[in-house]
Amino acid sequence: MGDPRGVGPEVIVKALHNRGVPADVHLIIVGSMAVLQQAAGALGQELRAARVANADWKGEEPAVLDLDNFPVAELEPRRPDALGGRASVEYIERAVRLVLGGKVDALVTAPINKEAIGAAGSPFPGHTEMLAHLGSARRPVMMLVSAHLRVGLVTTHIALRDVPRGLRTEDIVEAAQVLAGGLRRFFGLGAPRIAVCGLNPHCGDGGRFGDEEARIVAPAIERARSAGVDLQGPKPADTVFAQAQRGDYDAVLALYHDQGMIPVKMGGLADVVDVTLGLPFIRTGVGHGTAYDIAGRGQADERSLVSAIRLAARMTHASRNGSRRGG
Amino acid sequence: MGDPRGVGPEVIVKALHNRGVPADVHLIIVGSMAVLQQAAGALGQELRAARVANADWKGEEPAVLDLDNFPVAELEPRRPDALGGRASVEYIERAVRLVLGGKVDALVTAPINKEAIGAAGSPFPGHTEMLAHLGSARRPVMMLVSAHLRVGLVTTHIALRDVPRGLRTEDIVEAAQVLAGGLRRFFGLGAPRIAVCGLNPHCGDGGRFGDEEARIVAPAIERARSAGVDLQGPKPADTVFAQAQRGDYDAVLALYHDQGMIPVKMGGLADVVDVTLGLPFIRTGVGHGTAYDIAGRGQADERSLVSAIRLAARMTHASRNGSRRGG
Repeated sequence: MGDPRGVGPEVIVKALHNRGVPADVHLIIVGSMAVLQQAAGALGQELRAARVANADWKGEEPAVLDLDNFPVAELEPRRPDALGGRASVEYIERAVRLVLGGKVDALVTAPINKEAIGAAGSPFPGHTEMLAHLGSARRPVMMLVSAHLRVGLVTTHIALRDVPRGLRTEDIVEAAQVLAGGLRRFFGLGAPRIAVCGLNPHCGDGGRFGDEEARIVAPAIERARSAGVDLQGPKPADTVFAQAQRGDYDAVLALYHDQGMIPVKMGGLADVVDVTLGLPFIRTGVGHGTAYDIAGRGQADERSLVSAIRLAARMTHASRNGSRRGG
Repeated sequence: MGDPRGVGPEVIVKALHNRGVPADVHLIIVGSMAVLQQAAGALGQELRAARVANADWKGEEPAVLDLDNFPVAELEPRRPDALGGRASVEYIERAVRLVLGGKVDALVTAPINKEAIGAAGSPFPGHTEMLAHLGSARRPVMMLVSAHLRVGLVTTHIALRDVPRGLRTEDIVEAAQVLAGGLRRFFGLGAPRIAVCGLNPHCGDGGRFGDEEARIVAPAIERARSAGVDLQGPKPADTVFAQAQRGDYDAVLALYHDQGMIPVKMGGLADVVDVTLGLPFIRTGVGHGTAYDIAGRGQADERSLVSAIRLAARMTHASRNGSRRGG
């Protein structure tokens, strides 16, 4: 459900009315029934979900696994604090237990806030890192998916100044392998074509401004290709995304957060989905934040959540089909 | 005309047939008549331009000021070398003399190649720097204009690792002032709203990953606002461009090359125009390079050149109207 004070509850209520959610998807919302009911009331909408005590519920309707951990009276003011942060972390921890235990096929996340979970004592900058910890994943890869673009990130929430000095060949190789593996297993792509960005403008223009392309990226491409990954580049970051968007590549591997995030979000946030690859389970999430400034007003757009649910379903189906073919 | 071996000559020939070029624009192509005739022949098109000896020509037709400095027999192979580089530099130097001398209202550039002009002894990484030198401009600002986005750059052709360690408050202030001045004078915007990007993901998230937003960008905003520039931010780079595109800002000031170039080029290169502000004259140029790999085949798209010509004409008109209002 994400942070109770963010837009998570209201986009969930809206998504339950959205016809974009496939009929064969069974939703179990790990959250607070009271908060969801409050959001539904504020929206003037019905909460189309039944309260359940555990995830064994097999009804047709969506269900709320109610952790009852957030007092509705505390919803205002909408801001990050330990109460909302603690609740957000509890939803995620419970949901991860469900998906690791095979009770559900995939995990979809509503927005949390770093400041809030930090106030509650959680050291993670976001879902990716927290889920990697809970899932004991050594190399999680954050991937953003929009209508026409898939972008994996080699580095995520670090200062830009730490990107050039910390970038290692093996980080690129491992991220490319996780990305390629994810595209094969969950996207039905037998031999995914992946372009990797250069770090510098025009890929350093033959070493005139920056040499990381030759020194760090090119060796990573060689190693990844030896390992069977169709990794191409380094490609200038200011043209490769338009090329990928028109179909030249199945995905782009960006070296740093904004290099990959800027192009994915150019079409607006409505269809941006945040995916974590390299976990022992399928995980998608909304591409937007808690948006405290508009939370509770019913203005938040549920389409990113709907896209995240749809993608989790597609990834689940692709994974099953692949297993059947493989076995 | 740009590099004779690049796509410049052919996009010029095509542009002369393109109805997008306004009828009241008088074009003088500084280049090689023989190369343009070769390009026209290869395209099976007529070269709609008269050869002239100087820029005083006042006929209705487009004119070619023929520097006759490139032997057509040397067009192949299409690659960067000193011959093409030297010719490119001569076209620019002559054109700058014309525009500085008031013989023409604006300068529009076709693509040159850094390696080629470098081989010819020119130390500049691109048009922006060369034109700043020729025009004795202390602070040129590169601005990219697409259909729905205007983006100014604080830094251009430098290694990414040099961006965080070289970024200075005064560079941002000066770039913002030049950008605002250019938008007022050449774009008819009385009080342009400009957003400046942060450097780090999520603007450093309150100092958790990077402090340049508080240490360098915020003081620049304060100083620019004191100087009458409506500079807002710092804004997270992964959302501000979509906001500007939908009209929240008249322009975005990006801190480094790819931060600004990636979003501008997401819609394809056809309508991307490269503008230099802070020069003593109006200058626009194509948003693409010499594209040696397709040069001579007639495949190059002339729309970026047509957009550059149209924008130069609009900037000229806006500048005249402003002067009339001012005087």
